[in-house]
Amino acid sequence: MGQDQRENEVGNGRDREEEENDPNQKNKVRGVGGEEEALSVERTFENQEVPSWRQQLTVRAFVVSFMLSILFSFIVMKLNLTTGIIPSLNVSAGLLGFFFVKTWTKFLSKSGLLKQPFTRQENTVIQTCVVASSGIAFSGGFGSYLFGMSGRIANESSDTSDFKDPSLSWIIGFLFVVSFLGLFSVVPLRKIMIIDFKLTYPSGTATAHLINSFHTPEGAKLAKKQVRTLGKFFSFSFLWGFFQWFYTAGEDCGFNSFPSLGLKAYKNKFYFDFSATYIGVGMICPYIVNISVLLGGILSWGLMWPLIDSRKGDWFPSDLSSTSMHGLQGYKVFIAIAMILGDGLYNFFKVVGRTLSGLYSQLKQKDIGVILPVADRSSPASTTPETSFDDQRRTQLFLKDQIPTWFAIAGYVAIAAISIGTLPQLFPQLKWYYIVVIYLFAPTLAFCNAYGCGLTDWSLASTYGKLAIFTIGAWAGASHGGVLAGLAACGVMMNIVSTASDLSQDFKTGYLTLASPRSMFVSQVIGTAMGCVVSPCVFWLFYKAFQDLGTPDSEYPAPNAVVFRNMAILGVEGFSSLPKNCLLLCYVFFGAAILINLIKDCVGKQRGRFIPIPMAMAIPFYIGPYFAIDMCIGSLILFVWEKINKAKADAFAPAVASGLICGDGIWTLPASILALAGVQPPICMKFLSRATNARVDKFLNPS
Amino acid sequence: MGQDQRENEVGNGRDREEEENDPNQKNKVRGVGGEEEALSVERTFENQEVPSWRQQLTVRAFVVSFMLSILFSFIVMKLNLTTGIIPSLNVSAGLLGFFFVKTWTKFLSKSGLLKQPFTRQENTVIQTCVVASSGIAFSGGFGSYLFGMSGRIANESSDTSDFKDPSLSWIIGFLFVVSFLGLFSVVPLRKIMIIDFKLTYPSGTATAHLINSFHTPEGAKLAKKQVRTLGKFFSFSFLWGFFQWFYTAGEDCGFNSFPSLGLKAYKNKFYFDFSATYIGVGMICPYIVNISVLLGGILSWGLMWPLIDSRKGDWFPSDLSSTSMHGLQGYKVFIAIAMILGDGLYNFFKVVGRTLSGLYSQLKQKDIGVILPVADRSSPASTTPETSFDDQRRTQLFLKDQIPTWFAIAGYVAIAAISIGTLPQLFPQLKWYYIVVIYLFAPTLAFCNAYGCGLTDWSLASTYGKLAIFTIGAWAGASHGGVLAGLAACGVMMNIVSTASDLSQDFKTGYLTLASPRSMFVSQVIGTAMGCVVSPCVFWLFYKAFQDLGTPDSEYPAPNAVVFRNMAILGVEGFSSLPKNCLLLCYVFFGAAILINLIKDCVGKQRGRFIPIPMAMAIPFYIGPYFAIDMCIGSLILFVWEKINKAKADAFAPAVASGLICGDGIWTLPASILALAGVQPPICMKFLSRATNARVDKFLNPS
Repeated sequence: MGQDQRENEVGNGRDREEEENDPNQKNKVRGVGGEEEALSVERTFENQEVPSWRQQLTVRAFVVSFMLSILFSFIVMKLNLTTGIIPSLNVSAGLLGFFFVKTWTKFLSKSGLLKQPFTRQENTVIQTCVVASSGIAFSGGFGSYLFGMSGRIANESSDTSDFKDPSLSWIIGFLFVVSFLGLFSVVPLRKIMIIDFKLTYPSGTATAHLINSFHTPEGAKLAKKQVRTLGKFFSFSFLWGFFQWFYTAGEDCGFNSFPSLGLKAYKNKFYFDFSATYIGVGMICPYIVNISVLLGGILSWGLMWPLIDSRKGDWFPSDLSSTSMHGLQGYKVFIAIAMILGDGLYNFFKVVGRTLSGLYSQLKQKDIGVILPVADRSSPASTTPETSFDDQRRTQLFLKDQIPTWFAIAGYVAIAAISIGTLPQLFPQLKWYYIVVIYLFAPTLAFCNAYGCGLTDWSLASTYGKLAIFTIGAWAGASHGGVLAGLAACGVMMNIVSTASDLSQDFKTGYLTLASPRSMFVSQVIGTAMGCVVSPCVFWLFYKAFQDLGTPDSEYPAPNAVVFRNMAILGVEGFSSLPKNCLLLCYVFFGAAILINLIKDCVGKQRGRFIPIPMAMAIPFYIGPYFAIDMCIGSLILFVWEKINKAKADAFAPAVASGLICGDGIWTLPASILALAGVQPPICMKFLSRATNARVDKFLNPS
Repeated sequence: MGQDQRENEVGNGRDREEEENDPNQKNKVRGVGGEEEALSVERTFENQEVPSWRQQLTVRAFVVSFMLSILFSFIVMKLNLTTGIIPSLNVSAGLLGFFFVKTWTKFLSKSGLLKQPFTRQENTVIQTCVVASSGIAFSGGFGSYLFGMSGRIANESSDTSDFKDPSLSWIIGFLFVVSFLGLFSVVPLRKIMIIDFKLTYPSGTATAHLINSFHTPEGAKLAKKQVRTLGKFFSFSFLWGFFQWFYTAGEDCGFNSFPSLGLKAYKNKFYFDFSATYIGVGMICPYIVNISVLLGGILSWGLMWPLIDSRKGDWFPSDLSSTSMHGLQGYKVFIAIAMILGDGLYNFFKVVGRTLSGLYSQLKQKDIGVILPVADRSSPASTTPETSFDDQRRTQLFLKDQIPTWFAIAGYVAIAAISIGTLPQLFPQLKWYYIVVIYLFAPTLAFCNAYGCGLTDWSLASTYGKLAIFTIGAWAGASHGGVLAGLAACGVMMNIVSTASDLSQDFKTGYLTLASPRSMFVSQVIGTAMGCVVSPCVFWLFYKAFQDLGTPDSEYPAPNAVVFRNMAILGVEGFSSLPKNCLLLCYVFFGAAILINLIKDCVGKQRGRFIPIPMAMAIPFYIGPYFAIDMCIGSLILFVWEKINKAKADAFAPAVASGLICGDGIWTLPASILALAGVQPPICMKFLSRATNARVDKFLNPS
């Protein structure tokens, strides 16, 4: 569920960013008055030589990218395995990449060893590589389909017959054969999407503006301050994580079991768990996401689950274990799935509709030789007259370095052949002809996703993945291991469409920073390769270090893994396994999700802002609303900050949030190493009711 | 011990205040250049009519005073009963008094009902009344001699034979008969001390400058901001206290048992107990006090007590209860007493010496008609040429309203007679002739203390009290209830000398704000009367609400009560009851305290700043160093703040600290009401070692 959310939030987060950090836009607005040339972005960079695409790909860039990709893999993995909500980390990646290389080049230039200055093209290469690499941590499905195949998750689901436990070797192999296809499928179309259609790609555009601004003297100064802020909150968040660790000897110990709203609320998962990560996430996500999550939490854990639980013995047997899918747990998972599917489907049709109508008008306008903006946002790129200096220079450089189409097609066919040959070895349930069918449709879907993302910034990767789960799962059928076939197909599909939209975003970023498409492609390939190795290793560390990974109520419940697996089971087995009245409730919530979206679109943007997002509401259904409280606190902090000093909040809130997320995220590295080494925390901070405490005191001091 | 410290800190805290808030001083510095008249404080107030002394005593002033005196009684009582360290609360009293009356008069003036504007004289009346009233909470000995008489404390001491449990009626009676004597004893001498000797009275002077500054337009604006800051931190601190309460169901539960430095450090009382009060106290106290307390804590609980404890079975029997005075507890108490007595005695002789030499030179100079500054501080008052406009005007108004000497003498004799008649009824052990002797010496000692306080800002009230404990205790002897006689004599003595120095400070404040001596005297009398009723009631609330009041390791250990009682026992029984080697250690620490003071005075002020204060070092000996950690954190916050923005820190740190102290202090009111009503907190936040936690988990979930 978080997956769709993720791209959504990237987009929304970016929008906010864009409004403030977009010097280009401001210039253009003023440029209408005739001063455009003087205020053009590329004019300020005119005296800087653009390095050749080979020079853009420096060793230092990839060294920094590798370090950052490890950092962000940890963060994304942690988020994957806790709630599945992954905010935009592009700002932090941009800031940290700039910081590392700048420090390094400054050091070298002082010692007289600097051969090549740090250019914005190089910065874009780092950004692309890091995003590609940490993207694998998400699209690799470690918190969703891939982990959903494991025995641990199978035990939480209603079908335990068919599972495949993770192992470092097959995961790396699997990722290598499926992750590169998406890249080759969009390469031939890059000119159409960037130059001809002038698609917006809000995230890519925002990143480009950020990078451009870093390389102006003024921007560098602000960036330095932002990096310092990030560093401060990084340290705080890391040390806080470290401090918390000492008090977690045993289950239900420590700050993340703090019943800050009372013991009764705690039992229904309403509490503040002192997580710096989710406070940061709350600061990055738009207010409506945070409020939706909280609303969803109140609706489910505050209202529905207690009510359903009171029907125990009537709707479902009262002697079931609390994790059984035939009991309350089933309602939690399947109602969440219904809501996610309702929202996903609605948006799928909406985006496909807009894609088709957009394509249609593009082609029509092309015929009559006029290019008009197609996106409903008045984005800088699409409102620029074709003749502007910026556009001329950018187009010229974008078209200079070509990637031959034969290379793209040959690459696609070669990798497709390899993967058709190897995937059935890994998953005997996934027959070779399923893969052929997927690969025939994939380029179209990849293009659809890349195009839709360019228009709306909303990548539907996980929706396409769910489509694959249901179609391939149903095709294979229960008797032929449909569950695993569906999950594996989901992985194949998700990787293609997700990397396709990522690369398109990167092309846009490259276009706006004069980075060569070739260097973007190479950087994406290298980043993807890094990700294929780093992400499984990071996951492996988590998997080995935290033995309760994937069990509900644990530190890492991996909610999406259970959801994805149950979707596959649903696809294969139909609705027969659901407990009483669950199907009815599922229909209601499926319908409600569509209805809410419809209302949201009908009332217009102004009032639609205040209507919650069903996808976000569904997230706490399974794992509980505690992280929603963290996120709302993050929101509240941002809100108050904006009230007090809007300019400062706008400039530094992303840095504060990134610092909080990164520090807590990277603490999981030492935490998991400690767990692997068998070092256990010394103290348990326990919360007992007064009566229990009296019993415990008597037990400990019998005298 | 905290008692001497208290006045010391008031002084030091004030010094800091004085440097910043002293417009007078600044004026004078500039005034040297010839512009003195233009910059004179009284010139700015020249157009304001000074109300008559009766008009200064308004009803609203006493209503506000009464409210504030309840607030501050709670705070002082809490501090009395936790550590005995009481910082200067004059700034918060000043701020809050100004805030309340200003809000009230603003409201009235808007509705057109204001008859009398709010003058600085009225503000001084409030200040005087509040300080007098909350002074009783300290000099009433609720944390020292008076509570030391109780059975609870007797059980903690080595002599349990003789005790008198507190009761509301006799405490109020006792306070009424002893608290007013001091006032009458200094009244005849006020002209000598304020006009002739021009004594500094740093606290009184600082308070006067604060009040003067409030009533200039600029000062009122700053005061408003400070009040807002105070209010913010007040609310935070109050809510934090409230939040903490929920987790304290049972012993060793909650944030004040948080082993933030590990369980082993916690066992030796090294931990941060999240007390907003002591963070605030740390911000007000000078750095050296905080460092001294921490050093003392490390020396005692980090080094000596573990070492002495390892001699168990050799130096003292190993089967003693942990609270027995013949075991480790004895070392803790008596070594602390030795150090306090060493420091107290050194400073007693130092102050008496300076008093005599000061008096001698004053009288000599008076003979030759020249008045020179006697204080070694270059205080505003003492460096002013006699002819300045300010001085003329102040002297004129100070001498306008006289208090006849016959009235003072008659008052003293009358009250002395009453108290000689009634005190032996309350304490049969305190024979009437003891009291006569005390009252014969008292005026001299009261003058000594008022004079010494004027010179050094250091009131030696509790040192005079200890003197009474030893002399009267030894005189009465063990067989005639010497312990109780000593403690009661201590109370009589302390109240006289303490109120004498308080009133002198107030006369100085009144002199500098043109408030009449008569209104000061009346305000002090009313304030004292309020204190005699309010303080016992507040104490009674604590006594009834917290059944473990006075037991070590509890929330309110009342360390001074045990120390005072043991001093009395020592005075009566001699050294026979001390455990092995304890006397030797006492001599060492007694000597060390004197030596450290000697070194401090010899190396000069510049380097002496870095030498710790023995009195402060002795405080954690008995109760443990946990509050020292709080105080050092307060210090650290102030230090960092001063590094970042010195001006802002100087202006707002006292307000922040006051807010923290007041909020937490006033939370004790609802907390004790809840305790009285039998409402217990619902949750216990418990800290268990990993092994214990495993046992507890097994006990709670046997399956």
